[in-house]
Amino acid sequence: MKLYSANMAPNPRRSRMALAEKGISGVEMIDIDLAGGENLKPEFRERNSLAKVPVLELDDGTCIAETAAIYRYLEEIQPEPNLMGRDAKEKALTEMWDRRIDNALLMPIGHCFQHTTGFFKDRMTPVAAWGEEAGKLAAAFLPILEQQLQKHEFVAGDHFSVADITALCSLEFGKVIQLRITEDFPAIQRWHAQMKARPSYTA
Amino acid sequence: MKLYSANMAPNPRRSRMALAEKGISGVEMIDIDLAGGENLKPEFRERNSLAKVPVLELDDGTCIAETAAIYRYLEEIQPEPNLMGRDAKEKALTEMWDRRIDNALLMPIGHCFQHTTGFFKDRMTPVAAWGEEAGKLAAAFLPILEQQLQKHEFVAGDHFSVADITALCSLEFGKVIQLRITEDFPAIQRWHAQMKARPSYTA
Repeated sequence: MKLYSANMAPNPRRSRMALAEKGISGVEMIDIDLAGGENLKPEFRERNSLAKVPVLELDDGTCIAETAAIYRYLEEIQPEPNLMGRDAKEKALTEMWDRRIDNALLMPIGHCFQHTTGFFKDRMTPVAAWGEEAGKLAAAFLPILEQQLQKHEFVAGDHFSVADITALCSLEFGKVIQLRITEDFPAIQRWHAQMKARPSYTA
Repeated sequence: MKLYSANMAPNPRRSRMALAEKGISGVEMIDIDLAGGENLKPEFRERNSLAKVPVLELDDGTCIAETAAIYRYLEEIQPEPNLMGRDAKEKALTEMWDRRIDNALLMPIGHCFQHTTGFFKDRMTPVAAWGEEAGKLAAAFLPILEQQLQKHEFVAGDHFSVADITALCSLEFGKVIQLRITEDFPAIQRWHAQMKARPSYTA
């Protein structure tokens, strides 16, 4: 397998961390130069028509885009250690939290970054006022995450899961919009320290 | 089980269609008045802190929010008919297409609607210029979907899946922003006619 990745971007990091947590090695890493627009070229669009990283390319040439789909594939080919829940309810709640963080934290952080900085203005139309709003939306999710982590050791409950990976990569990417895990969020701080201690942290 | 739903909204419809495709009956439907802000009240926020529909409430009181998580729960409790793929690759590609449609079609349609009309301006800050951009992003996804449906009978490949449900609910919701399946998209038109013929269409 090959993983088309990019060093600073949060979604490729989610995939690399999932590989590390699963203990899957031997995946060839191919770094895509997003700032230079390598992902916009026809060769890359053949792998993902939406021109985004990560993409997991299987040995038969099948290309799997979207981090959630890569999570799913890895969970299927190597069920242990389990990262997506063990029974119907646990699976659903893991999916719920992973999706919540993706939609209500990571996506607004990305929009805030792109729309306020104009980082990708060669390929999109930044709307600064929307970027500002998106930043507020991301910040508004922190109290919800804090409440969850006050009740549970991990994001989706009492087991480590892909939702922890997504939350970690989202929150650390949040630095680009000055989103900080302040002392107002002691449970997130406690959880963050636990995440940093995992070997997958540097993946 | 109970489903907290809303008649005109696309995500509750996705859940109702999945229930219908699975042949799961006896779920109590509770209509939430989104325009009137019933979803913003404390009673509802106890079920979903993000104040969104749909929510599937299990008999033990567990509340599952996020349509993708409801899909997952239904697939787990009633695997047939299969809606999310049969092997690792099929499951991953189904997830990929479902997620693509959610992020690159349904979400921009929703943003365009909310930001250009100000429909929810009592609870958010509409940014009209972003709404316009989001509308363009949604329209830009149609050629990608057309290309996929020229090669495959269904959205995720050769099997009906949740990705078809998500695509149908997204495209039909697109009417609110004047997104039309014109003759430029014959494969989408062919597929749309097939979807309308399924009993789940009116769920």
